Amino acid sequence: MAPVKVFGSAGFTNVARVLVCLEEVGVEYEVVDIDFLAKEQKKPEHLARNPFGEIPAFQDGDLMLFESRAIGKYILRKYRTDEVDMLRESNPGEAAMVDVWTEVQANQYNKALAPIVYECIIYPTAYGIPTNQKVVDESMEKLKKVLDVYEARLSKHKYLAGNFISFADLNHFAFTCCFMGTPYASLFDSFPCVKAWWKNLMSRPSTRKLSANLPKMV
Amino acid sequence: MAPVKVFGSAGFTNVARVLVCLEEVGVEYEVVDIDFLAKEQKKPEHLARNPFGEIPAFQDGDLMLFESRAIGKYILRKYRTDEVDMLRESNPGEAAMVDVWTEVQANQYNKALAPIVYECIIYPTAYGIPTNQKVVDESMEKLKKVLDVYEARLSKHKYLAGNFISFADLNHFAFTCCFMGTPYASLFDSFPCVKAWWKNLMSRPSTRKLSANLPKMV
Repeated sequence: MAPVKVFGSAGFTNVARVLVCLEEVGVEYEVVDIDFLAKEQKKPEHLARNPFGEIPAFQDGDLMLFESRAIGKYILRKYRTDEVDMLRESNPGEAAMVDVWTEVQANQYNKALAPIVYECIIYPTAYGIPTNQKVVDESMEKLKKVLDVYEARLSKHKYLAGNFISFADLNHFAFTCCFMGTPYASLFDSFPCVKAWWKNLMSRPSTRKLSANLPKMV
Repeated sequence: MAPVKVFGSAGFTNVARVLVCLEEVGVEYEVVDIDFLAKEQKKPEHLARNPFGEIPAFQDGDLMLFESRAIGKYILRKYRTDEVDMLRESNPGEAAMVDVWTEVQANQYNKALAPIVYECIIYPTAYGIPTNQKVVDESMEKLKKVLDVYEARLSKHKYLAGNFISFADLNHFAFTCCFMGTPYASLFDSFPCVKAWWKNLMSRPSTRKLSANLPKMV
């Protein structure tokens, strides 16, 4: 069978969100590079995959998907086994906690942490735009408050949704990995349970393999 | 059995996202008002429900949830029947399309439409802040582009995820309902398939009942 295809480069955090799911379930895949700076994602060939002209897109036979969280869930649902069950949809209470902390990643954690990654790494290296320190400082204040909540949660549970690893944890991988390459990584030292969770997450073969692709400070 | 509880007032769009799911599955529920302007959501009693101090929160026996999309999915998953199956999780392809268009609502549609609702209705009526016309104009340009994609999609399928109503459609209810009370509602006239979809969505008992609670222009 032809492997599934991921359209978008492995160095993009939203692409990495999909790849980490594929690595976890152990499915063969092909990454089809899309030249973002040349705006290949806005050309008709890619707009047929994602009408909003963004990456990633994902193909499994006749099925074409976009939106990285939706793709990740599809992969984890289709290739679920008793050993790798990261959505827990057969248990409404567990599945709900996966959904809660997946939403928290999008609506709280990433809104605080992603601007720091953009300002310190992505804007300077990809576009030559200097770091806006005011944005970094404000985001750091927000991130501290978010990590207070995470610390309380992870002092009671090994993973975000409970004592099982889930899609909610995997979602944190790419942006946090980039953040750890900024001068602000030591913030996590003040949150021992969060730091232990992160170290545990980064000890997985999937995250170790994919972290090499992610952008770093120059 | 005690009914499930929704913490937050029915006039808030994120609360309405939960209520429309409860109405669709026909489960008895109690709405516990939280006085948002008095910042009751930041007090310890509510922080125990949602550590980020936001609304809604949701209680079903011992289970306490927050994040409105996660709550909505829990309700639709737990009370799923053959007649009311709005997540389609037993079919990976259908479930993926529900997830794709649920993400599109959050990441494309609402990012364009919600600022118009805030500027025209919520800021002036709740906080006495006048409308920022520049924000409205820019958001309208974005919304037109989003609706181009929706028109193409809804010219081929009756609903967003396919020819079945799903959580993806329900998610559009509250903010679109508010938008329809602004001076910009006629934008939808240029998108006949979107307009027919919206009319169909608003013909449901759930949306008809809940629309009366949502904020309007004064």
